[in-house]
Amino acid sequence: MNRMNKTIAFFGMMTMAVVMVPSVWAQDSRWSSEDSAMVARIHDHVLGQGGCVEDLRVLCKEVGARLSGSPEADAAILWGAKTLREAGAPEVRMQTVIVPHWERSDVERAWMRIDGGQAEPLKISALGGSIGTEGQIEAPVRVFRQFEELDSLGADGLDGAIAFFNRPMDPLMISAGGAYGGANNQRSRGAVEAADHGGVAALVRSLTHALDTFPHTGAMRYDDAVHRVPAAAVSTVDARRIAGLLSDGHDVRVGLEMGCILHDDKAQANVIAEWTGTEYPDRYIVVGGHLDSWDIGEGAHDDGAGIVHSIEVMRTLVALGYQPRHTIRVVLFINEENGNNGGKTYARKAREKGEWHVAALESDAGGDAPRGWAIDATDAGTEAVRAWRESLVDYGMGDLRRGGAGVDIGPLKKEKPADQRPLMVGLRPNSQRYFDYHHSDRDVFENVHPRELKLGAAALTSMVYLLDRLEYEALGTEDE
Amino acid sequence: MNRMNKTIAFFGMMTMAVVMVPSVWAQDSRWSSEDSAMVARIHDHVLGQGGCVEDLRVLCKEVGARLSGSPEADAAILWGAKTLREAGAPEVRMQTVIVPHWERSDVERAWMRIDGGQAEPLKISALGGSIGTEGQIEAPVRVFRQFEELDSLGADGLDGAIAFFNRPMDPLMISAGGAYGGANNQRSRGAVEAADHGGVAALVRSLTHALDTFPHTGAMRYDDAVHRVPAAAVSTVDARRIAGLLSDGHDVRVGLEMGCILHDDKAQANVIAEWTGTEYPDRYIVVGGHLDSWDIGEGAHDDGAGIVHSIEVMRTLVALGYQPRHTIRVVLFINEENGNNGGKTYARKAREKGEWHVAALESDAGGDAPRGWAIDATDAGTEAVRAWRESLVDYGMGDLRRGGAGVDIGPLKKEKPADQRPLMVGLRPNSQRYFDYHHSDRDVFENVHPRELKLGAAALTSMVYLLDRLEYEALGTEDE
Repeated sequence: MNRMNKTIAFFGMMTMAVVMVPSVWAQDSRWSSEDSAMVARIHDHVLGQGGCVEDLRVLCKEVGARLSGSPEADAAILWGAKTLREAGAPEVRMQTVIVPHWERSDVERAWMRIDGGQAEPLKISALGGSIGTEGQIEAPVRVFRQFEELDSLGADGLDGAIAFFNRPMDPLMISAGGAYGGANNQRSRGAVEAADHGGVAALVRSLTHALDTFPHTGAMRYDDAVHRVPAAAVSTVDARRIAGLLSDGHDVRVGLEMGCILHDDKAQANVIAEWTGTEYPDRYIVVGGHLDSWDIGEGAHDDGAGIVHSIEVMRTLVALGYQPRHTIRVVLFINEENGNNGGKTYARKAREKGEWHVAALESDAGGDAPRGWAIDATDAGTEAVRAWRESLVDYGMGDLRRGGAGVDIGPLKKEKPADQRPLMVGLRPNSQRYFDYHHSDRDVFENVHPRELKLGAAALTSMVYLLDRLEYEALGTEDE
Repeated sequence: MNRMNKTIAFFGMMTMAVVMVPSVWAQDSRWSSEDSAMVARIHDHVLGQGGCVEDLRVLCKEVGARLSGSPEADAAILWGAKTLREAGAPEVRMQTVIVPHWERSDVERAWMRIDGGQAEPLKISALGGSIGTEGQIEAPVRVFRQFEELDSLGADGLDGAIAFFNRPMDPLMISAGGAYGGANNQRSRGAVEAADHGGVAALVRSLTHALDTFPHTGAMRYDDAVHRVPAAAVSTVDARRIAGLLSDGHDVRVGLEMGCILHDDKAQANVIAEWTGTEYPDRYIVVGGHLDSWDIGEGAHDDGAGIVHSIEVMRTLVALGYQPRHTIRVVLFINEENGNNGGKTYARKAREKGEWHVAALESDAGGDAPRGWAIDATDAGTEAVRAWRESLVDYGMGDLRRGGAGVDIGPLKKEKPADQRPLMVGLRPNSQRYFDYHHSDRDVFENVHPRELKLGAAALTSMVYLLDRLEYEALGTEDE
């Protein structure tokens, strides 16, 4: 309470525009016997009768990969709306979102030629958003770990070569997500850096700790100031081989033929299930994941898991006869992977309507066993969640850290006064295996563990319940 | 400090025989900057240069399954001693242990006959210790969930039938280990209960949450007061099918032919690597797992993981130039699976020599990502470990619970005055997948995740280091 009073005083001095005090009452944030009973019932229900495993099977096997703009994404939207209705959502609607529509096309092949010898096939995956090759490219490969090495070559240093970015995810980082964050500028910006130094294409080592033969795709961006060159991922096994050949002094040329097409933008939708609160119908708690996936694999962990977790929140709380105090919205966001237009549209509409989002939850870190939560909130909001820690530990979700809670819900805090941001939490499952599957042919239903998936759904449902029990005097995150 | 002083006073009043005050000094139990640096170095070393994955590959693929008494267990002992020496252990010795020598034999088959029809093959795994069938048995099957249901039938209620124990591991328990504990009396005592009620054999549903086609074996016991009948496990898929047929009113007969042999006991060994402490050479910290496994699969998670974790403790601390204050012993125990004679022999010898074991650590819960520790210690010892919690959380091992620390080290606390028991901790990896593999053909190297295995090794090494930093005024566990 002391700390909270200080926070309030601090804000009062900072600006007279702050009218709602940013606080979550600590006295309501403790774990009651009612909370114990409800969280136990939630876990029993999800583990014993939950539908999330079957939902994920259908999404993966009957809908399949579902990149924004694709017919499969349309099918996923219909499936999501139907499944939410069947889960007991009182109201389900579509929110139109304009999404990019990039297509890999059937033309995607590559080859490698060592010391001028025979071409041998090379497995690649065009990065999402890449232009095609307009015919074929074949060029020598030069390997880099850091963009700075390119700079030292000068503006035309690549001289028509293919830039191969081969910095691995740091194996010494405990968090696989952290290691991913340290390597993914190669994927997102490799093509720009290559073109900017006279390169004809970018080849990127797949972002995974696994040493395997699967290329892992993902989003890349162009820069209007730099001409566009194609970009593709190679597997870590191939990356290691190419780097080894180059370091042994061999001449390595790679050929690329990619027919990628950027279609016109397309209207798709966020799927929104709404359950009106009994006490605070005009205060919203949003929970979701993203319905779109990449176009290879089945999007099982990324983010089929988050989608079926979120649907299970609705199914479970309805089945248990819960009456939400705040209005709960389960949102299946579209277009997280290559634009985040679903998250942006949702947040913009919420702003336009003046909706007060007290809390926002996301599951977009896979279907492995939950460990805890990333909390993006004020000190007071963070303390409100931390007050539950000992009980969360009992359910295997007590590892609490401050950090980003999710890409889809992220825009809810943008363009908002500090005192009107929701308390945001993101489910943190075990991260060690996630990038083994991520954005590759390996991200399939069979690689999701059914009990671990259910535990994630129970964790997310429990956290929605707990956040619904809090009293919100005002919203969220301190000014930074 | 307050609590500790009270504990000391309490013990002082209880008995004058207590000469060493049972306390671990709280001022030494905090996390110093030196601790931060060392635990970071340990993790970097294991993740970057660790040998535990390769060790596990060799143990699984070149030694293989290694049940006590088998030639493969002999090979594992030689491999363990060699690997510990190569890891830098200053001294490695064998401690003779007399172990039982049960053998499945090549004769192991079963069949099922529905409503008197054709026999169809049924996959079984004889339970470890079971007698053979001396020819073939075929008998009708009756299904039970609880032993009490047998009692209600009376002494000869089974009337020559096979008792089929089909109680699943409780899917509602969060801890898979807890669910295992709630179901495994069927495996350990099913044959005794069957025989005691006129049954000719026991068939046991495999102890796993997974719905799969693999029988999971494990230890069973006989009771001298009850005649012996054979016992075998069936897969969960077959268990479900048999129970379904019976509940639909079909007549189900099962045939068994098992050639199990109980050989004479055999001399095998614990492998003990010793590294003399610089400050307290006569105080011991023991860390280990068990070298034996069941005779199917490769014993990769159970307990190849614990073995290579323990070897990595020695390799890492030696490589980092650490000088242990207490004498560190890495012990590869033999015979955990069917007798625990390795653990019992080690503890008895330690007692005979009057060795003061200040701490004991075990890894015998698989190679999945660490979550935390089971602590078996006095309040003061528990608090000493809990004082590190925030830092342990950063390394993903902050989930601390009181509980059994391990079967192999367990005898160290037996027949000991309360004030002479070691502070005991057991590594707790994620438990959700462990029983998918446990005691079955699925427990193979390929089902251990290399990064998760390394994180377990780094966790165990860190905890040995931390426990070596403590000051022990006396040992362990309060009188219970």
